[in-house]
Amino acid sequence: MLYLAETETGANPGVVLAENGRAVRIIDQTQLPQRLVHLELSNAPSMYEAIYKLRVRGAPAIGIFAAYAMAVLANVSEEPDFAAFARSLERDAQYLESSRPTAVNLSVQLKRMSHVLRGCKTIPEAREALTAEAFAIHREDIAMNLAISEFGLTLIKSGDAVMTHCNAGPLATSRYGTGLGALLLGAERGMDLRAYTCETRPLLQGARLTAWELHNAGIPVTLICDNMASIVMSRGLVNAVFVGADRIACNGDTANKIGTSGLAILAKHYRVPFYVFAPSTTLDPHCATGADIVIEERPGEEIAEMHYTKRMAPEGINFYNPAFDVTPHELITAIITEKGKMNLDGVTQ
Amino acid sequence: MLYLAETETGANPGVVLAENGRAVRIIDQTQLPQRLVHLELSNAPSMYEAIYKLRVRGAPAIGIFAAYAMAVLANVSEEPDFAAFARSLERDAQYLESSRPTAVNLSVQLKRMSHVLRGCKTIPEAREALTAEAFAIHREDIAMNLAISEFGLTLIKSGDAVMTHCNAGPLATSRYGTGLGALLLGAERGMDLRAYTCETRPLLQGARLTAWELHNAGIPVTLICDNMASIVMSRGLVNAVFVGADRIACNGDTANKIGTSGLAILAKHYRVPFYVFAPSTTLDPHCATGADIVIEERPGEEIAEMHYTKRMAPEGINFYNPAFDVTPHELITAIITEKGKMNLDGVTQ
Repeated sequence: MLYLAETETGANPGVVLAENGRAVRIIDQTQLPQRLVHLELSNAPSMYEAIYKLRVRGAPAIGIFAAYAMAVLANVSEEPDFAAFARSLERDAQYLESSRPTAVNLSVQLKRMSHVLRGCKTIPEAREALTAEAFAIHREDIAMNLAISEFGLTLIKSGDAVMTHCNAGPLATSRYGTGLGALLLGAERGMDLRAYTCETRPLLQGARLTAWELHNAGIPVTLICDNMASIVMSRGLVNAVFVGADRIACNGDTANKIGTSGLAILAKHYRVPFYVFAPSTTLDPHCATGADIVIEERPGEEIAEMHYTKRMAPEGINFYNPAFDVTPHELITAIITEKGKMNLDGVTQ
Repeated sequence: MLYLAETETGANPGVVLAENGRAVRIIDQTQLPQRLVHLELSNAPSMYEAIYKLRVRGAPAIGIFAAYAMAVLANVSEEPDFAAFARSLERDAQYLESSRPTAVNLSVQLKRMSHVLRGCKTIPEAREALTAEAFAIHREDIAMNLAISEFGLTLIKSGDAVMTHCNAGPLATSRYGTGLGALLLGAERGMDLRAYTCETRPLLQGARLTAWELHNAGIPVTLICDNMASIVMSRGLVNAVFVGADRIACNGDTANKIGTSGLAILAKHYRVPFYVFAPSTTLDPHCATGADIVIEERPGEEIAEMHYTKRMAPEGINFYNPAFDVTPHELITAIITEKGKMNLDGVTQ
């Protein structure tokens, strides 16, 4: 069993196993972009808290984190015999699963780790098998992202600019990411690619995480407010929109971060291709159409109050901040003045 | 010459003349919604600063403010003779005009006040004439807004909900406003009207000002992030979109706060009527189409940093905070998985 090398994970992976196998090492995503803080977590309560407080976020990243968490809890266990050791780990798995019940990867990977545990007979055997399984889960995700990114690269060429929404990069997955994968892989190969990144209110994953990841990879990022996507497309500044997906219904209807559907409508209006990137496991066979997908509603305080520190975007990126835009007359039902409806057939006043 | 009564201006007008005629009294819009702070301004530098720092904002409100400012500066002038008095006032007018060169109302109303000044022969005559002219400008704006609001009321009925963007209410104009006028006038008449208010990044005029004005008028407000407009329309939660306008080209193309064009595209997609409300003077005869309208670009810091205090919305309003939305498959060019393009013709995996 070999640790994942940096050539596999890329620099600064969001989730890895500590060298001694006795801690999960994560980037605390709530501290970005102001501070790059690494945390080493060795007990179940701190792991639960990391998921619950979004220190580790993104469904695939949470799944990888949970797998490493089970390996670590096996490695640090001080239970005297295998039966007690296994019971304690199963309790920990249930506890971690309850931290965010909606992230399907969390439950899937914990079940997979439990299955491995049940195939073991001794504590040393279980420790080795669980650690190996966690590495396998991590490697599989990297391979899946790489394949998605390769397909993505067939959709763009050097010189292109891509609009992004929320964060579907390495922090949310493993290496490369899904929605950001083609950009990161293309940049690695020397392609000239640029990004227009929607900040993604209310929690600003675009401003805080995507802009940070792309900027670190040397990709020129221009950060915009979500309501600036229309003017960016109207001026022909982007060649495509790349987003991730949280759940895909059998007819292709796709649930993703709030605002995605609006971007798709704008993209159609401006004839910009709109691509969704996701592992094939994101297809939910229990959802026939988007109408079957339940949308999580979150507290109004996320809108009313700013939870982040004053600076919400990394230093060194670009901004595009037009104060106004122009709405073409054919989109306006009527212009109402103090004289009533303005005649829109031409110069009338 | 009579002062405007509260029955004319409504309660808490954003701009009025102090009772002694020696100060312009404004609501400091940068302090809302956390604090309702009134300022009394009696000298040109503080008046300049109020416009420049957006303590008073909204093109019509700035025009009214500038008119009262000239009356106040005439009333407090200590110049010994009429020639020096007039020269000093003309210098003040030029100085105030330079505070925000893009707001056309500022220049128009200052020119109108200068014209009145030039028709006078004595200091007492000028003081009386300038004060009367400022009251006239204020009254004209109120009348124009009332007429716009009456037309707006013909477009909605009791029970309707309206989506708003930025702030086109009393704070930005005089009483009632343009885009918010129909809602405020309808509420005054006992109609049951509701609003979905886009927060309007980056400066949050929707969250800070529109939500405050509508909530104070007893209109139920649901605040959303700008990227939530699509899901709100998709669920049939609004009957119309009402916005203001900063400049209208001769063909009807309309410049308004960033994000307006995106709302118009969404409204067309969801078949929601999209109405623009503005004084007829907003039509710019020098602009044939929207392509002739120059768009102001502002500093990136407005996006990168949060300039307002922690709480960005008034207490007591509603929020709608869906974390995801669903993009219909027909809007998606392709879904890319690790296996390549997903077949969108139905269940294929």
